[in-house]
Amino acid sequence: MKPIAITMGDPAGIGPEILVKLAAEPAHPAHLIAIGDIGVLRAAAAAFAPELEIAEIDHPADAASPKPGRLEVIQPASPLAPPPQIGVVDARAGLAAYQAIRAAIEYAKSGDIAAMVTAPIHKEALTAAGLTYPGHTEMLAEHGGADGEPLQVAMMLANDELRVVLVTIHMSLLDAIKAADLEANLAAIRLANEGARAFGVAFPRVAVAGLNPHAGEGGRFGREEIDIIQPAIAAARAEGVDASGPWPGDTVFMQARAGRFDVVVAQYHDQGLIPVKYLGLEQGVNVTLGLPFVRTSPDHGVAFDIAGKGVANPSSLRTAVREAVKLATARGA
Amino acid sequence: MKPIAITMGDPAGIGPEILVKLAAEPAHPAHLIAIGDIGVLRAAAAAFAPELEIAEIDHPADAASPKPGRLEVIQPASPLAPPPQIGVVDARAGLAAYQAIRAAIEYAKSGDIAAMVTAPIHKEALTAAGLTYPGHTEMLAEHGGADGEPLQVAMMLANDELRVVLVTIHMSLLDAIKAADLEANLAAIRLANEGARAFGVAFPRVAVAGLNPHAGEGGRFGREEIDIIQPAIAAARAEGVDASGPWPGDTVFMQARAGRFDVVVAQYHDQGLIPVKYLGLEQGVNVTLGLPFVRTSPDHGVAFDIAGKGVANPSSLRTAVREAVKLATARGA
Repeated sequence: MKPIAITMGDPAGIGPEILVKLAAEPAHPAHLIAIGDIGVLRAAAAAFAPELEIAEIDHPADAASPKPGRLEVIQPASPLAPPPQIGVVDARAGLAAYQAIRAAIEYAKSGDIAAMVTAPIHKEALTAAGLTYPGHTEMLAEHGGADGEPLQVAMMLANDELRVVLVTIHMSLLDAIKAADLEANLAAIRLANEGARAFGVAFPRVAVAGLNPHAGEGGRFGREEIDIIQPAIAAARAEGVDASGPWPGDTVFMQARAGRFDVVVAQYHDQGLIPVKYLGLEQGVNVTLGLPFVRTSPDHGVAFDIAGKGVANPSSLRTAVREAVKLATARGA
Repeated sequence: MKPIAITMGDPAGIGPEILVKLAAEPAHPAHLIAIGDIGVLRAAAAAFAPELEIAEIDHPADAASPKPGRLEVIQPASPLAPPPQIGVVDARAGLAAYQAIRAAIEYAKSGDIAAMVTAPIHKEALTAAGLTYPGHTEMLAEHGGADGEPLQVAMMLANDELRVVLVTIHMSLLDAIKAADLEANLAAIRLANEGARAFGVAFPRVAVAGLNPHAGEGGRFGREEIDIIQPAIAAARAEGVDASGPWPGDTVFMQARAGRFDVVVAQYHDQGLIPVKYLGLEQGVNVTLGLPFVRTSPDHGVAFDIAGKGVANPSSLRTAVREAVKLATARGA
């Protein structure tokens, strides 16, 4: 398998810390390389993983055989000098995080890496750098396509109990109601089906959550279920997807957790993320569906409040790497 | 303590069954009486609690000393003849359920009962009877006030891990966005504070969830947090309530579960009910806040699919009674 590339994330957050901590662990499921600022990563290693050797390479093809205790790093743009201050929003940090992601996307598209795993970024830092992406998913949709056309992607959140795919993500709830149209629902149902198959479910049972309380209760509390979600489910079923619903949002996740469904399509951000996060499970992972390559990420943010203190936990990043390896293997990457 | 009255709920659902099963248990935390159709409850007792004696009384004041194995019933309206068919929407069933609730409200207002506990009703049956209430809460808001004026009430859902108060309940998500205005938020925060105090928390930490993803992220994903929720929190704090937020919806419930907050104010139905229901806890209870008396209910519905089969579990109704006794005791009712 080609290397798995981890992007450093916002250099002012916990990304570099968890990256070097993970790289310093004795065993990995794959050959890990990093994409990001080498000075930032050297400083993180000096502080949090002093035994780790940092080696610069120019391209994933230059990666040597994986060696415990050594992390190869690709510097995707000019070095950050001076390094950004930890825990502070910084336009240079936002730009550097973005450049690492863009480089990883190109390596993933060209097949030079088996998968990309992304450490967390900070949206205000992106904004300060003049970048308007609400998150990784939107960058991947814009740049992940082979022909330069934007892709229809979806975010899947998975932990040991639940898999959720979002119809809409980072927009106001009012905008989400408008954006969760028939096309977006159908795309999310298809991607949920493919995503659950990629996780090893041969014939996924895809549950679609309603938008309104009690899934609209037959039109009494809104008509989106009747006018949009039911037709989307019917269209997916006509394509052979085992989709069902719309189910009331307040019980469908509980039922999926109990084993009745393999994946739930949620209409908007909080509907899907509340149940995924409720138990505080540390093994959560995000997967971007609809890309021509594998991308996963931990399910936490930059955690500026603890950045630089040495207490950040790489467990979710470790899970993201492990799942990326599984998904890349299933694809034959 | 005066008796606790349990309304029978929709007679075609599991309400009568769980009521007689509970009444037949050997020990109760209070004197339980029932309000509902005596023929329906006699039939339920014959089927599911054959040792239970059903005795008709005219008024709560006529209730004898509590006696194990006997349930006193107030018939609030004309007897249902023939009895409604189990598991089927029936206008007569909807009307009878409503009449029991109305009678209980009057007894609660006059102080003839210590609290009311309501078995589940079916909204389609209400609609068939020409009644437009989406649920109990709206009936209680309309009729629960001493002077005939509608009350500002809120629904609190509580289990052993989490307490949630809803700003909006039974309306489309689009309508909920409009209805969750400053006044409704402030009322819900006040009621959440009072409700948590009624549950024994001396100085409740009240967390208010945002409406939009990431609580709007500083206005990037909607302005409701800035224009509505923050001012409502500030107003509540000026009144001495320990309110905080708006917190991102996807993590605030997890944090409350972990002990950081005593109660969470949710902006809309699914936001609050997804986490309450996610673990499938059987001890959940609903409490209506803002009434001049105590009202609780189990957190499940009429369950037409299992009604009449003898498999309905009275555990949530038992919890609702137990909590009603606690809350009534705290009020000195």
